[in-house]
Amino acid sequence: EEVAKLLELKARLGGGDDGKHQFVLKTPKGTRDYNPKQMAIRERVFNTITRCFKRHGAETIDTPVFELKETLTGKYGEDSKLIYDLKDQGGELLSLRYDLTVPFARYLAMNKITNIKRYHIAKVYRRDNPAMTRGRYREFYQCDFDIAGQYDAMIPDAECLKIVHEILSELELGDFRIKVNDRRILDGMFAVCGVPDDKFRTICSTVDKLDKLPWQEVRKEMVDEKGLSEEAADQIGEYVSLHGGMDLAERLLQDPRMSQSKQACAGLSDIKLLFSYLQLFQVTDKVVFDLSLARGLDYYTGVIYEAVLTQAGVAPVALASNDAQNGSEESVSVGSVAGGGRYDGLVGMFDPKNRKVPCVGVSIGIERIFSIMEQRAEAAAEKVRTTEVQVLVASAQKNLLEERLRLVTELWNAGIKAEVMYKKNPKLLSQLQLCEEMGIPLVAILGEQELKDGVVKLRVVVSREEVDVPRSDLITEIKRRTSDV
Amino acid sequence: EEVAKLLELKARLGGGDDGKHQFVLKTPKGTRDYNPKQMAIRERVFNTITRCFKRHGAETIDTPVFELKETLTGKYGEDSKLIYDLKDQGGELLSLRYDLTVPFARYLAMNKITNIKRYHIAKVYRRDNPAMTRGRYREFYQCDFDIAGQYDAMIPDAECLKIVHEILSELELGDFRIKVNDRRILDGMFAVCGVPDDKFRTICSTVDKLDKLPWQEVRKEMVDEKGLSEEAADQIGEYVSLHGGMDLAERLLQDPRMSQSKQACAGLSDIKLLFSYLQLFQVTDKVVFDLSLARGLDYYTGVIYEAVLTQAGVAPVALASNDAQNGSEESVSVGSVAGGGRYDGLVGMFDPKNRKVPCVGVSIGIERIFSIMEQRAEAAAEKVRTTEVQVLVASAQKNLLEERLRLVTELWNAGIKAEVMYKKNPKLLSQLQLCEEMGIPLVAILGEQELKDGVVKLRVVVSREEVDVPRSDLITEIKRRTSDV
Repeated sequence: EEVAKLLELKARLGGGDDGKHQFVLKTPKGTRDYNPKQMAIRERVFNTITRCFKRHGAETIDTPVFELKETLTGKYGEDSKLIYDLKDQGGELLSLRYDLTVPFARYLAMNKITNIKRYHIAKVYRRDNPAMTRGRYREFYQCDFDIAGQYDAMIPDAECLKIVHEILSELELGDFRIKVNDRRILDGMFAVCGVPDDKFRTICSTVDKLDKLPWQEVRKEMVDEKGLSEEAADQIGEYVSLHGGMDLAERLLQDPRMSQSKQACAGLSDIKLLFSYLQLFQVTDKVVFDLSLARGLDYYTGVIYEAVLTQAGVAPVALASNDAQNGSEESVSVGSVAGGGRYDGLVGMFDPKNRKVPCVGVSIGIERIFSIMEQRAEAAAEKVRTTEVQVLVASAQKNLLEERLRLVTELWNAGIKAEVMYKKNPKLLSQLQLCEEMGIPLVAILGEQELKDGVVKLRVVVSREEVDVPRSDLITEIKRRTSDV
Repeated sequence: EEVAKLLELKARLGGGDDGKHQFVLKTPKGTRDYNPKQMAIRERVFNTITRCFKRHGAETIDTPVFELKETLTGKYGEDSKLIYDLKDQGGELLSLRYDLTVPFARYLAMNKITNIKRYHIAKVYRRDNPAMTRGRYREFYQCDFDIAGQYDAMIPDAECLKIVHEILSELELGDFRIKVNDRRILDGMFAVCGVPDDKFRTICSTVDKLDKLPWQEVRKEMVDEKGLSEEAADQIGEYVSLHGGMDLAERLLQDPRMSQSKQACAGLSDIKLLFSYLQLFQVTDKVVFDLSLARGLDYYTGVIYEAVLTQAGVAPVALASNDAQNGSEESVSVGSVAGGGRYDGLVGMFDPKNRKVPCVGVSIGIERIFSIMEQRAEAAAEKVRTTEVQVLVASAQKNLLEERLRLVTELWNAGIKAEVMYKKNPKLLSQLQLCEEMGIPLVAILGEQELKDGVVKLRVVVSREEVDVPRSDLITEIKRRTSDV
């Protein structure tokens, strides 16, 4: 990080003396390269996530990185200002995708697909002010899983939560909590608390700040800035402090005020049903019905959820940041790592006849997870292998390049991951050092004597043990020795 | 294809009667979505390619989809007009990457890396006029493998060709040919044929057309449009008709005219050396030294190569297009599927002190390969599975949703890929149809009797065979039955 900054500074000041190279040597603001070590970690995380999505029977699709500008228009509310537009170079007006959900809805409408379970792992773009140390970027990956189709209530919704539970457990990121609420419960609550209809959205976005601000400040914003009555604010305050499980949903269904809202009752009944399925899925240990959860995006219509990591220990990044100073005594939230909900109206927005396709989905925000895994690998001084090479073909003597190339060809043709140094006469020591450095477990050493005897000296790098293996047995022997690595 | 066009037309005409949905429902020009079937094929191709890159010990990196505009400036010659720029929204001027080579060179210079073997599979962007039926798009994947570092001549270069050979063989795309030449041989040839220095580039780009035009037309362009003397053109004509192997390089080293060029001799010696390594790598059957090969990009400094598929039968797409009408009697080339070469100067362009890092690499152009594979799957009416689900948890009776959810949870928790229909009481028939449709091999059927007996009825979809399996043995039994699928 530091080094990159210094390099950037240096480049900015202009290193060259011929004036030709005065450009800035950097990646665009809010973006980064992934080096091989980071890619190895990323691959591990993606494999875990993909395996989970596939275990649940999802297909995958891909869409272009940009869409017609009008496809994205009117889907993100205030956040639309964060969309990257392409320059008008003649032809269509294009924008980089902001998420994977809107392109998914466009895909369904365009192809008249009414049911599918799909995942999509790809980069999205937001011209936000990045906090890169906390894993927030302008270009970042989303891993989305969505179920589209007319099904019986809450079964697909419950599966989305099961998936979040499986992924966060398998990634071993420490303890986590999945908060659940329902857009209809929020709207019903606002109605019974006396919030005017035209203030639902703006009050909702104030409630959304409760994960960062204490209630008193949120209340102040409602009353002072948004002109809500003190009485209404206090009633909301009572509700949004509630969290629990199925029992809380039952209690609220009996609540004299809340039960007056049909909408709220529909939401509460669904929460009850959801929890009954979550019990069967064995994931209720991490799921909390939390009335303060209010996700921002316009397109949600029913259940919404968000997963947060609660174990401070796993995220030294967040602790080192300013956020931690606002953290309470209890568990410090390192922010959302997954979120989603039901959006039954979005596909209809793209359909000429406004035909609806009910959808529910979840998006795993992978960059924060990467940050944690990276930090952890560094902290543990873990040796992350960046290649899978099983054997280096080496020689201690000169003039054996041809023999090395012949042997490495045999290995490649047999499907063995093998390398050879691109030198005519490399020293044995530098060949062994390469193995140490790259974590290559075996060396196949050729010399005049071995060639004469029709053998190869196979050396185990860690133990320094050496055995002569008949050339004809070499492939079997390497496969045997690397299968249990 | 047809359907998409009609849909687009319909959307353009405006399907809605409320005037609200008058937008065009399509992807941007020159781009496409990948549906699950296409993704399944794509995944297979990527796996083959990645496996090969890893077998040769490559690490992988990733770079942002856009770069600072100035990073791309001056690297692509005339093709620069095809670069997508982002709109100036305040801040930096950005462009979408045009290939993966320039970002790689920027990455090396920025991180002061002097040797690495890396692959990078990602999308690149060109505002070209797409011929989508022939697999040419504005957004398309490149699969790049490059070796950077100061090594002994031609060893990494030969490995790049070995890799192309392995990948094209494994993908079973039919016969292919890898043409090889050297930028220094071309330049030397131009010099000894009397081409003025300032015409090297433009004459080179005319030579590059020889894979599409007959010699007479190429000659005409040289003489009439580019003002080359007839004598020089005829001398070039003699050379560019030559192709062969190591023997041709040897002959040209003795050629009275060619041998006058130091540059050409250096190139020819390297071609000889290259072929000696290619023999050891067992790939000379497909490699041809072809003096008419002249790749366009400015940054090549040494050996260049290009792979073409030569079997007409594998590419009905190309045959159906206008191209085929120009095709000769012999094998019809369906165009280049891979290309690359040595570029020793590019990294230095990014280094303030102009320190060079020698590089050689190859780029696999995957879209054309997808097109062929897709067409082939369609022609063979091949059933492409889009999920990997091993078992559907089903029931013939009503009111067993809970039991189905309980069982599918057991399977998921054991790592088995399983699904359940999102209905309270689905019909057995529709559950079995789902299996047929998605290619799910097994059904685990629950009923009152099975629950009482502590068993599950396991049905093999293809054979309709059914056996009762004790619940405690179910996971083992499913794993046993699907391991050999």
